[in-house]
Amino acid sequence: MSRVFNFSAGPATLPLEVIEEIQRDLPDYAGSGMSIMESSHRGKEYSAVHDEAVANTKELLQLDDDHAVLFMQGGASTQFPLIPMNLLGAGQTADYTNSGTWAGKAIKEAKLLGNVNIAADCGKEIPTRVPTESELQLTPGAAYLHITSNETISGAQWKSFPKTEAPLVADMSSDMLSRPFDANQFGLIYAGAQKNLGPAGMALVVIRKDLADRAPENLPSIFKYKTHIEANSLYNTCPCFTIYTYMLVTRWIKKMGLNALYQQNIDKAGKLYAAIDGSDFYKGTAVQECRSDMNVTWRLTNEDLESKFIADAAEQGLKGLKGHRSVGGVRASIYNAFPTAGIDALVSFMQEFERANG
Amino acid sequence: MSRVFNFSAGPATLPLEVIEEIQRDLPDYAGSGMSIMESSHRGKEYSAVHDEAVANTKELLQLDDDHAVLFMQGGASTQFPLIPMNLLGAGQTADYTNSGTWAGKAIKEAKLLGNVNIAADCGKEIPTRVPTESELQLTPGAAYLHITSNETISGAQWKSFPKTEAPLVADMSSDMLSRPFDANQFGLIYAGAQKNLGPAGMALVVIRKDLADRAPENLPSIFKYKTHIEANSLYNTCPCFTIYTYMLVTRWIKKMGLNALYQQNIDKAGKLYAAIDGSDFYKGTAVQECRSDMNVTWRLTNEDLESKFIADAAEQGLKGLKGHRSVGGVRASIYNAFPTAGIDALVSFMQEFERANG
Repeated sequence: MSRVFNFSAGPATLPLEVIEEIQRDLPDYAGSGMSIMESSHRGKEYSAVHDEAVANTKELLQLDDDHAVLFMQGGASTQFPLIPMNLLGAGQTADYTNSGTWAGKAIKEAKLLGNVNIAADCGKEIPTRVPTESELQLTPGAAYLHITSNETISGAQWKSFPKTEAPLVADMSSDMLSRPFDANQFGLIYAGAQKNLGPAGMALVVIRKDLADRAPENLPSIFKYKTHIEANSLYNTCPCFTIYTYMLVTRWIKKMGLNALYQQNIDKAGKLYAAIDGSDFYKGTAVQECRSDMNVTWRLTNEDLESKFIADAAEQGLKGLKGHRSVGGVRASIYNAFPTAGIDALVSFMQEFERANG
Repeated sequence: MSRVFNFSAGPATLPLEVIEEIQRDLPDYAGSGMSIMESSHRGKEYSAVHDEAVANTKELLQLDDDHAVLFMQGGASTQFPLIPMNLLGAGQTADYTNSGTWAGKAIKEAKLLGNVNIAADCGKEIPTRVPTESELQLTPGAAYLHITSNETISGAQWKSFPKTEAPLVADMSSDMLSRPFDANQFGLIYAGAQKNLGPAGMALVVIRKDLADRAPENLPSIFKYKTHIEANSLYNTCPCFTIYTYMLVTRWIKKMGLNALYQQNIDKAGKLYAAIDGSDFYKGTAVQECRSDMNVTWRLTNEDLESKFIADAAEQGLKGLKGHRSVGGVRASIYNAFPTAGIDALVSFMQEFERANG
């Protein structure tokens, strides 16, 4: 078994001990005589997994009783329409900040469904960034304010969250459970699982329960947050295996400690940013104050050199460094489970590559 | 390792060789240095899996080029609203047959979204059944006719499919790929994966491509079949691991042969129905002509005896025989991957149980 360093933006590297536990538990989970992916979603083995996944999430986020934890399908992209369908009443306005590709997608879908005010727009700026709290032009009585806590493609991240009268809604797909923050401040948080949380196929949703009452009566059942709150995410067959893996990941986060992981994430990102800043050969994509601890993005002097960098790195077992196809460049996605040894290997490679090609 | 006989309705038993292959391929898939659940959904390893899953489906269903194969999230329950949202124009009527719980759910959601005509209603009849083609009261110019090919809860199954002018739409969640049929006759087929196809977390959709053009422009992108057709189910991050498992299951179906599996399914169900019919102690739930080859349902003379039957069976490694909580009784779900040895064990148990309690 030879594991590479996997810098993919998502699906992304998972803790090796989690993968190994999954492997051990196939094809007989906990003496049940079947694997967990064959177990009824209403049976005792899976129920214990499901309940622990909810409990670990509540504990890690220190959630109050006004908030519910949901496991939904369809990724963050399905939340883009579900949020306005549930939360944006007729005649109301929702505020959105535009900070890049993912915020832009949330905005595009919301505009199909209701009134949208762009509270701040730096979506096309280079170097990339997220808005500052002071530049937000908020609508009085807005249904909610939507932000994208970390732009996976541009590598820009909100370092603190705005205090707002309207419920704050955040796409945290690429930094959920990577740092401590006050989750109870939020009206709704959603995150595709395939970065810090587990395999693709689940969106974690944290919602202030009273907001779910806003949904119009005639919204289809499966699209109502209320349905999933009332059914504890078991209205229909849930993606059991993905939730099981997420449960194992939350166990691992608890064992590591969220604060300790956060410190490790800062240190990992810091090493890469230091390597970028220490050379004129590399140029970071995001403005300094917004640099993401999860997705470190940079450019080389030309695209041919970038292609060579990415190809040479892959040959040395540093895989998945290609920037998103929409923007190019280099991107190192270094979520919770990405090991420090891989950062050190990448820093060494960057130095070698510069010596050889600089 | 001791595997039980798992009669769960879904998630359900998978071929042991598939589970073992998944196990072998963790944590290093095909020498890539990472598991398949950590691989980028746009990388070469996963792309090969995805393409094979599509190709195997097309081959097994002998699909023509007018039809597309989609992997979507949210289970069959998400298809309930998506179908009218995409296919049912303003002012049009959709025909639905009501044959039980699942058809009823499809109808309930469609009614929120447009005009629905109940073309036949035997949803509450006991013994349970599906409509006959001759009793259908179809709407001229209907947007489509929706049927539920196999009612997982009641154990009633369409044995042949009606020929209709309107596109035929079918929920095949519990009998997809369990028998040969003319898939090209259908406008749209959908099936939650967690019965014959793989783990929970994916819906297989087969759609006649021209029908996707009916969707209104302002439908959110993720809800449009057209989006997923154009992106080959990669519009957003797909549930890679579930699709990977589905691909392995389709490989297994190809190896076994769909016709041979069908014959085996008939034989398996036949043995159980013979055991039911051979005794006054057991009473089948569905009318003879509609008896499902996938979900065999029956009653005992009283509920206490049913509870004892289910509990005693579980002690002998025959698990998951409890009927759906909404109807009670006994249900043996015996999908493609359920082994004949488990049928024989259940038949023996039924005879013993009758001797001891009859």
